[in-house]
Amino acid sequence: MALIVDKTTTGREYKVKDMSQADFGRLELELAEVEMPGLISCRTEFGPSQPFKGARITGSLHMTIQTAVLIETLTALGAEVRWCSCNIFSTQDHAAAAIARDSAAVFAWKGETLQEYWWCTERALDWGPGGGPDLIVDDGGDATLLIHEGVKAEEEYEKTDNAEFQIVLTIIRDGLKGDPKKYHKMKERLVGVSEETTTGVKRLYQMQANGTLLFPAINVNDSVTKSKFDNLYGCRHSLPDGLMRATDVMIAGKVAVICGYGDVGKGCAAAMKQAGARVIVTEIDPICALQALMEGLQVLTLEDVVSEADIFCTTTGNKDIIMVDHMRKMKNNAIVCNIGHFDNEIDMHGLETFPGVKRITIKPQTDRWVFPDTKSGVIVLAEGRLMNLGCATGHPSFVMSCSFTNQVIAQLELWNERSSGKYEKKVYVLPKHLDEKVAALHLGKLGAKLTKLTKDQSDYISIPVEGPYKPAHYRY
Amino acid sequence: MALIVDKTTTGREYKVKDMSQADFGRLELELAEVEMPGLISCRTEFGPSQPFKGARITGSLHMTIQTAVLIETLTALGAEVRWCSCNIFSTQDHAAAAIARDSAAVFAWKGETLQEYWWCTERALDWGPGGGPDLIVDDGGDATLLIHEGVKAEEEYEKTDNAEFQIVLTIIRDGLKGDPKKYHKMKERLVGVSEETTTGVKRLYQMQANGTLLFPAINVNDSVTKSKFDNLYGCRHSLPDGLMRATDVMIAGKVAVICGYGDVGKGCAAAMKQAGARVIVTEIDPICALQALMEGLQVLTLEDVVSEADIFCTTTGNKDIIMVDHMRKMKNNAIVCNIGHFDNEIDMHGLETFPGVKRITIKPQTDRWVFPDTKSGVIVLAEGRLMNLGCATGHPSFVMSCSFTNQVIAQLELWNERSSGKYEKKVYVLPKHLDEKVAALHLGKLGAKLTKLTKDQSDYISIPVEGPYKPAHYRY
Amino acid sequence: MALIVDKTTTGREYKVKDMSQADFGRLELELAEVEMPGLISCRTEFGPSQPFKGARITGSLHMTIQTAVLIETLTALGAEVRWCSCNIFSTQDHAAAAIARDSAAVFAWKGETLQEYWWCTERALDWGPGGGPDLIVDDGGDATLLIHEGVKAEEEYEKTDNAEFQIVLTIIRDGLKGDPKKYHKMKERLVGVSEETTTGVKRLYQMQANGTLLFPAINVNDSVTKSKFDNLYGCRHSLPDGLMRATDVMIAGKVAVICGYGDVGKGCAAAMKQAGARVIVTEIDPICALQALMEGLQVLTLEDVVSEADIFCTTTGNKDIIMVDHMRKMKNNAIVCNIGHFDNEIDMHGLETFPGVKRITIKPQTDRWVFPDTKSGVIVLAEGRLMNLGCATGHPSFVMSCSFTNQVIAQLELWNERSSGKYEKKVYVLPKHLDEKVAALHLGKLGAKLTKLTKDQSDYISIPVEGPYKPAHYRY
Amino acid sequence: MALIVDKTTTGREYKVKDMSQADFGRLELELAEVEMPGLISCRTEFGPSQPFKGARITGSLHMTIQTAVLIETLTALGAEVRWCSCNIFSTQDHAAAAIARDSAAVFAWKGETLQEYWWCTERALDWGPGGGPDLIVDDGGDATLLIHEGVKAEEEYEKTDNAEFQIVLTIIRDGLKGDPKKYHKMKERLVGVSEETTTGVKRLYQMQANGTLLFPAINVNDSVTKSKFDNLYGCRHSLPDGLMRATDVMIAGKVAVICGYGDVGKGCAAAMKQAGARVIVTEIDPICALQALMEGLQVLTLEDVVSEADIFCTTTGNKDIIMVDHMRKMKNNAIVCNIGHFDNEIDMHGLETFPGVKRITIKPQTDRWVFPDTKSGVIVLAEGRLMNLGCATGHPSFVMSCSFTNQVIAQLELWNERSSGKYEKKVYVLPKHLDEKVAALHLGKLGAKLTKLTKDQSDYISIPVEGPYKPAHYRY
Repeated sequence: MALIVDKTTTGREYKVKDMSQADFGRLELELAEVEMPGLISCRTEFGPSQPFKGARITGSLHMTIQTAVLIETLTALGAEVRWCSCNIFSTQDHAAAAIARDSAAVFAWKGETLQEYWWCTERALDWGPGGGPDLIVDDGGDATLLIHEGVKAEEEYEKTDNAEFQIVLTIIRDGLKGDPKKYHKMKERLVGVSEETTTGVKRLYQMQANGTLLFPAINVNDSVTKSKFDNLYGCRHSLPDGLMRATDVMIAGKVAVICGYGDVGKGCAAAMKQAGARVIVTEIDPICALQALMEGLQVLTLEDVVSEADIFCTTTGNKDIIMVDHMRKMKNNAIVCNIGHFDNEIDMHGLETFPGVKRITIKPQTDRWVFPDTKSGVIVLAEGRLMNLGCATGHPSFVMSCSFTNQVIAQLELWNERSSGKYEKKVYVLPKHLDEKVAALHLGKLGAKLTKLTKDQSDYISIPVEGPYKPAHYRY
Repeated sequence: MALIVDKTTTGREYKVKDMSQADFGRLELELAEVEMPGLISCRTEFGPSQPFKGARITGSLHMTIQTAVLIETLTALGAEVRWCSCNIFSTQDHAAAAIARDSAAVFAWKGETLQEYWWCTERALDWGPGGGPDLIVDDGGDATLLIHEGVKAEEEYEKTDNAEFQIVLTIIRDGLKGDPKKYHKMKERLVGVSEETTTGVKRLYQMQANGTLLFPAINVNDSVTKSKFDNLYGCRHSLPDGLMRATDVMIAGKVAVICGYGDVGKGCAAAMKQAGARVIVTEIDPICALQALMEGLQVLTLEDVVSEADIFCTTTGNKDIIMVDHMRKMKNNAIVCNIGHFDNEIDMHGLETFPGVKRITIKPQTDRWVFPDTKSGVIVLAEGRLMNLGCATGHPSFVMSCSFTNQVIAQLELWNERSSGKYEKKVYVLPKHLDEKVAALHLGKLGAKLTKLTKDQSDYISIPVEGPYKPAHYRY
Repeated sequence: MALIVDKTTTGREYKVKDMSQADFGRLELELAEVEMPGLISCRTEFGPSQPFKGARITGSLHMTIQTAVLIETLTALGAEVRWCSCNIFSTQDHAAAAIARDSAAVFAWKGETLQEYWWCTERALDWGPGGGPDLIVDDGGDATLLIHEGVKAEEEYEKTDNAEFQIVLTIIRDGLKGDPKKYHKMKERLVGVSEETTTGVKRLYQMQANGTLLFPAINVNDSVTKSKFDNLYGCRHSLPDGLMRATDVMIAGKVAVICGYGDVGKGCAAAMKQAGARVIVTEIDPICALQALMEGLQVLTLEDVVSEADIFCTTTGNKDIIMVDHMRKMKNNAIVCNIGHFDNEIDMHGLETFPGVKRITIKPQTDRWVFPDTKSGVIVLAEGRLMNLGCATGHPSFVMSCSFTNQVIAQLELWNERSSGKYEKKVYVLPKHLDEKVAALHLGKLGAKLTKLTKDQSDYISIPVEGPYKPAHYRY
Repeated sequence: MALIVDKTTTGREYKVKDMSQADFGRLELELAEVEMPGLISCRTEFGPSQPFKGARITGSLHMTIQTAVLIETLTALGAEVRWCSCNIFSTQDHAAAAIARDSAAVFAWKGETLQEYWWCTERALDWGPGGGPDLIVDDGGDATLLIHEGVKAEEEYEKTDNAEFQIVLTIIRDGLKGDPKKYHKMKERLVGVSEETTTGVKRLYQMQANGTLLFPAINVNDSVTKSKFDNLYGCRHSLPDGLMRATDVMIAGKVAVICGYGDVGKGCAAAMKQAGARVIVTEIDPICALQALMEGLQVLTLEDVVSEADIFCTTTGNKDIIMVDHMRKMKNNAIVCNIGHFDNEIDMHGLETFPGVKRITIKPQTDRWVFPDTKSGVIVLAEGRLMNLGCATGHPSFVMSCSFTNQVIAQLELWNERSSGKYEKKVYVLPKHLDEKVAALHLGKLGAKLTKLTKDQSDYISIPVEGPYKPAHYRY
């Protein structure tokens, strides 16, 4: 796509695939609202006081239907919003169209190139001459990264062999031609960021440890109502969804290897087991390995099982998990996918550059790669990127309502405390009573009724009647 | 679509949606072959002797990728084939295109009108002046029905209020203008039919009981490797698949009502339970009800739960299960779908004619129907027809390989015995040793190893070393 | 125990372990009654008319608390009853005491020798000079066997190497000294037998095939409400129960091998999987093997896994499944048990006679057998006999209520039709409407509500409103 | 039992039920050792250096077979040990006998009165004139409590209405007659305590907060390998075990109410669901409630379901959960039990003092309580105390090996650092690398193989190759 910004009749900027899908997007958005009670409650509770009045929010987060409900919650609370996706395949084009038409500046489409991806990120951060956003909603940390790298842009960096990262530098360099203080201005204005996912949070803690973090950050990922819900139950839903849409393969009877048994891996393993697969887990952490065993799963190394399994899914958050040499040993038409992190969990580079390898695209996001010697092929989903977003529609609305309600609450907290000095240039988690509130907002939809502590019981266990109910270290 | 028959360059007739999808269909067909070891084994075992040489086979069965592998197995064994779908929404257009281009005469597309549907059925049965097919592969019994009704066409029928059935009569009447003995000729030529599903089998047994069955029939549905696999494990896979593609709704935490707890209902209930829903079953049969209870499911009537459940799925094979009055009492955006039988399990007629009701099509096969008084809506999938075929791609290849291997074996049996008098105008099931063979053909793909009886053990339990291993009444 | 018959103050004969346990037995009996709605309904429905008035019933069936409720249902309907157990370890002594004191002649205790076992069986069949019983309730067929062998006793038998069978012959020979026509008289009087279990039923069908069956038999085992409930759900409950009581071993994380995947094996595999074990199945039948695969279980041969598994359980109904050579290759303290059939599923003879083997009795029914060379041992439960009865208390009351209500109905049917000629010397199953009735009697206790067919629906599917709802071949 | 201390031939003190069960205990102990690889590894790794040489350890922890392996691990490392149980019903008398005969001073038997219980605790703490123990292994905190209360004994306490607590005061008073500085001496000598369970840990944190904690404490309960294993998987195993041994009731088909959905509640709910029950959860915490919903469980209040459920189990750690007024509304023979905390989760006092209530003891630990007006009864297990220990044998060896390996490591840490000043009078948790070590010691037994990070991967995610692998706040 030509990288030219479009404008709505009201003058709002956007760049999406097909504006004619806006009506379809609106219909699905309306369905999603019914499934996202936490966000709708935020509109009801906070909308009247317009707490985000005057706030500019930039989001870098999969531009899906669920995110659309988040965006319109932010705008319902008074914010102005600019948005991009945090993954080249994760945008739902009808969602992007509906938001671009009705609510916020969107720069996102399904199937961006890496150049396009960073262009979109840069567009979402660019609020014009007056500087950047007040707040960032981040997922994976790319918006945050761009600002931090921008600020460092005058310095000499050492050569990097990360192809994707080179693009960031180019984007920054081009921007600096226009305003050599662009990112410094952005940094000055920024109140803070709320970060959504494990990988982005890890980056933030590293910056905090290095003393390079430029603004306060709220780690939304480690809210219980995020990591133990979205990561776990979201993936339990969306892994089979992605597998079925991409390949129609029968899961029952197959051997599925789940690499990593963290929250995401637990959700994936549960989904595969429940669908009738035999599940084998690979792990580096003995505690997680022992958890897998207690659920009846086998724990082995990838090498042990590479030639007998049918489905391989990475969830580790690390790189170099499934290498091209593994793929060469797999059964014909073994399925290889990633639901954890970046596309480097799978050795896509090794696969793409393997001499004589042949790529047969069955349909978008579903490729069969055939090795020249064996004529045997593996089926790689979403080019090694997040398969639930590339091949299906990501996590369902209800669980995303939990995650996004945390986001809204974190954004409110940062904004309300922008002048109080409460938050330093550190990483924070939300207090437990807000975590519990997020959960409470989702119970009614599912017909649940909570029990109330009596005063006497409250005294007996020294826990307030209204909570919080657990100590900080509680693991759920 | 204009109902004009197209022809390939080799002169084979067809009518499909889009021939340019043939390459895509071929790629998915090749993937499916790897998942359908039973059919591929038939090609290996029987292909060289060309047992179907000279046989004309008409099929009326969902024109999916899996069916395409069945069709090409029949042609690999020497048959000529003409095909239509047995459901207006179940055709996968790329599958139809690939077969039309490469292998057989196909008349099918996704989204036929009822008129088009019966036109296609009639085309599939019409082999030109020389009469009809030698064999029928049927699913639901519509090809068989058309012949039986055709034969009866001179008689006066009583008035019927079944809208769909009127179309059959019109089709027949039009055909009779060309050849007033058309269906009698067809009947004369026909060697037999093999029938795939519960509803069609029920029709056959009724015709047998009435003495009106015109040719032998093999009930493939009641092979164990069909009813206890396709119906059970197929639906366990394809119900959540359809729900997710159509609505993206989170299943975990929801209340799902499964109407009927036969093989299909058992698969559906298992799928919903495993996905984290709370499942309530409705049943008329106390034995099936007690089975549901033993699995921890609640057994209630639809009236008891209509206003508190989120997902309703019919699997009964009966009519009038979910009526418009039920739908009016449901929660806003409750999902209503059918995976059992015809669209009359759900009161589509009552819904469509409800005064003031508004239909909002979210996307094809996903409609929100809003009642005028409450402004509350229900989401109906696939217009009340089989949602796994309308909203997803039907059952996965592996389990269909079991069903279709039964079909191939049944067709071979009918054809090989066409002159022996072995089969009268009755309904037969395949002998157990063939049923066991179908299963055996599918074990290797899944890495299983069977234990062998010793001679001594065989004597002890009076079961042959090579099987069959179970008495006829065994329930598995 | 000295084999001397005791008498109650009212003159009824018995031989039990400890009459002082009668009160305890009565208390547990009263608990069980609440869990056995089918039997209690029989008392309510049939008790007033005393249909068994004048009938003598002999039972050979595990003398447990649940059986006690069966016995008192038979007596509540007017029968006189004599009872023995059908397994040397399965008697619950407090149940035997309560019945002996209050209701019927009982000859049973936990831990009988084989001599004592057959003595008890003979006592239960001996109604004094006037001949034997009118009806037999049988489980495994030993009471039926004794009569058949008795009738053959004048003939010359070929030598048998079955140690247990020699005892039968001795018992018979001793009896013949008193009355050389004893078993012929018994045969003359006998109205019929209802048989409870797979093994006994197999014997009956063999006798029917050989033309040697001496009286009518009703196969209760193949009632759906028996084989698909007691065998499946009963074992799902009682396998872990037996394992836990005998060994306290943690099941989670272990590898469990289930030999055989029939109804019993399905229940056992489900139980082990649910408890967190990794389950491997061995099978001879490809259909059952494919069912196991669809549930995510691995199917291999015993040889493949003998050295890596922790728990082995036989459910085959065949002999020579786990041989002493297998046991020598197992891990130290591997658990070996049988829940299927006789103790010959496990090669107890080979184990007992293995040179240098050492038996260490941990507690009754839990033995560690140590091989002399490896010093490694296996733990064998219940001496290879049914471990759920030997190490725990058998199946729970609720599921036995299903089985035993079938027994009562079968006994009533035989008795009511004793003069009508309806039943020949063949094996019969109960008609489906009675099977459905048994299920229906158990729904209320679990809070279930059935849906009723409308007349219109009934016509549509040609099934009576009141059932039966399924064809005979239906598999559930 | 008369409270007179016995002595072995070697002069070691003890008080147990029946010394003749020592051989039986030893056999079961040997079985358990095979299942407890963590403890055996400690013996192998630390035994040679005798790190506990000179250390006196007092334990107050359920005197079961598993605890016996813990005790003999402590003695194998050089400690002298005195032991009592921390629950009046939890002792396994054969385990106590084996330890008393062979290894340590034991004061424990199944079915102690409260007087006896505290006498045993006092005996275990009394090491003669030279003061008390160096270290305490505690479960529930009663040994720690006794010392703290002892130290306070000169002060005037306010009147308490806790019947059990009065006994503590009496015990202390009696002891003070002999040595008025007894507890001060004990306190002086004590190096520290390691505490096993939630309730005891809560007491410790309260004392820390109040500044009244007299010595360092290690909170073993919150090791991941304790709370997420013993509490969760242990209860998943032992709840059904206790139910089956106590009542033989069929769990399938029943409605089970689990009060509380923490780690214990999660294990209990999973066990009931897997056994085929329909599970309803009560919760005060919205996050835990939402977790239950995601697993398909219903969340309601006790009042909503009290009259329709069959099994009630408390796991809250709070008091007054099931009151006598609830029990009066339950179905006849509803089962009421506690697996969480003290017997005050169930209103035993209200039940015992209800006018006209009748207690019928079916067998020890299984009582039917009948209300006078309705003649309806509830079955209360283990008199409201921990039913898995009262009615079964507690958690299985393997999971206890995880917990107890934490105990051994904590004891080693306290002892090794006794002079270093590392530990103040505060509550500590074990560092993560030790937690991971405990897990690692249990993998081999289950056949698992860990994956190793490469150096490159380790750098990429900034996690050492050898771990620890997770941040402190990780929830598993």
